[in-house]
Amino acid sequence: MSRIEAKLSSLGVDLPDPPAPVAAYVPVRVVGDLAYVSGQIPMIRGKIMAKGPVPSIVSPEDAAQAARLCAINGLAALRQSLGDLDRIKGIVRLGVFVASDAGFTGQPAVANGASEFLVEIFGEAGRHVRAAVGSVSLPLGVTVEVEMTVECSQVP
Amino acid sequence: MSRIEAKLSSLGVDLPDPPAPVAAYVPVRVVGDLAYVSGQIPMIRGKIMAKGPVPSIVSPEDAAQAARLCAINGLAALRQSLGDLDRIKGIVRLGVFVASDAGFTGQPAVANGASEFLVEIFGEAGRHVRAAVGSVSLPLGVTVEVEMTVECSQVP
Amino acid sequence: MSRIEAKLSSLGVDLPDPPAPVAAYVPVRVVGDLAYVSGQIPMIRGKIMAKGPVPSIVSPEDAAQAARLCAINGLAALRQSLGDLDRIKGIVRLGVFVASDAGFTGQPAVANGASEFLVEIFGEAGRHVRAAVGSVSLPLGVTVEVEMTVECSQVP
Repeated sequence: MSRIEAKLSSLGVDLPDPPAPVAAYVPVRVVGDLAYVSGQIPMIRGKIMAKGPVPSIVSPEDAAQAARLCAINGLAALRQSLGDLDRIKGIVRLGVFVASDAGFTGQPAVANGASEFLVEIFGEAGRHVRAAVGSVSLPLGVTVEVEMTVECSQVP
Repeated sequence: MSRIEAKLSSLGVDLPDPPAPVAAYVPVRVVGDLAYVSGQIPMIRGKIMAKGPVPSIVSPEDAAQAARLCAINGLAALRQSLGDLDRIKGIVRLGVFVASDAGFTGQPAVANGASEFLVEIFGEAGRHVRAAVGSVSLPLGVTVEVEMTVECSQVP
Repeated sequence: MSRIEAKLSSLGVDLPDPPAPVAAYVPVRVVGDLAYVSGQIPMIRGKIMAKGPVPSIVSPEDAAQAARLCAINGLAALRQSLGDLDRIKGIVRLGVFVASDAGFTGQPAVANGASEFLVEIFGEAGRHVRAAVGSVSLPLGVTVEVEMTVECSQVP
């Protein structure tokens, strides 16, 4: 078992099978030593776990958990694409979009759900830059969408 | 005529002259083997083809056509910058912002207008990662804005 | 004094000490010859200089000044990370999120506050691609958030 998968297991995180790509886009695209990951949503086995804006429908705390789930789904997509999560040398950037009521300004705490999880798994290499913003509405009504860019070693 | 331009012609797509850069930004910037393209809007010869949010003003179907037009304008900008569209080795990433009424959750279908067009033109190399989100309002009132990152061969 | 810092001084721009990183993300991450900068907000010494949407609370002109301040804070973060702003070879991309009332469509003029400043400082090398969009609400209630990607020379 790879080092990162062992770390995930020790935290009780079970990577789901990533959903099959729908439409014309793909979950991951690698160029040189960067892997780009499509915007991930808080979905488990086809079921959306957090729907609606913060805070009128979903609390900031639940939204942070949903952001963490987006990051987990991103790792699942990367495992499928890279073959081994140990090829990830570091997390570079997150784009975090939070479905927000007008006047909600706590997007950073929501995004921390993803950011802190990634540092927990990857340590210092997991520290990344981030843009967290509010969105009037998101695909399928999800509460949060997270896109990722990671640095990876090239296939030997 | 280049291979990609022939493909565009076969589909009846006529690349417009890209609008001259306004203000301090540029349509395309190349770093190494990546070309970054500014957010494109659904404009033809100075006229905006889709204005207002989805679905109250613009239908999802018309918004998807507008997203396709954004992608066409992105290719026009790339042709001007790269000299030849055959230098594009693949589409890496789209950022798709859809002007959305609160509660509209069909951004993926809108974004497919751009994504499917690019796969039609570039085949497998056109498959990309994507973040599609709702936006409360966009520049000049457009219905959709699409930014692109593409992989390209370096100038010989 | 570095060339770029001299240019900043000649314009009366004093780079602030960047705020210490909060939570799990970092202000700058360098991969190869690209430096990614986290979304910057219009803050000086812990005080937010522009809060609320455009135009109901903040005028487009004041929002453009706030975008300029975001760019200044981005340079401050880059100076701390790179050691010397002269390592910046060019500005590649800005992502500009403008807190917007429904119907506000002047995001480009707001974003110009950041774009024109960067061209003033870096000349032609400061010209970049850009995506400027409206956001229903932003972290801490700020009027504008700007993320940056820059090209830099690698550490010798």
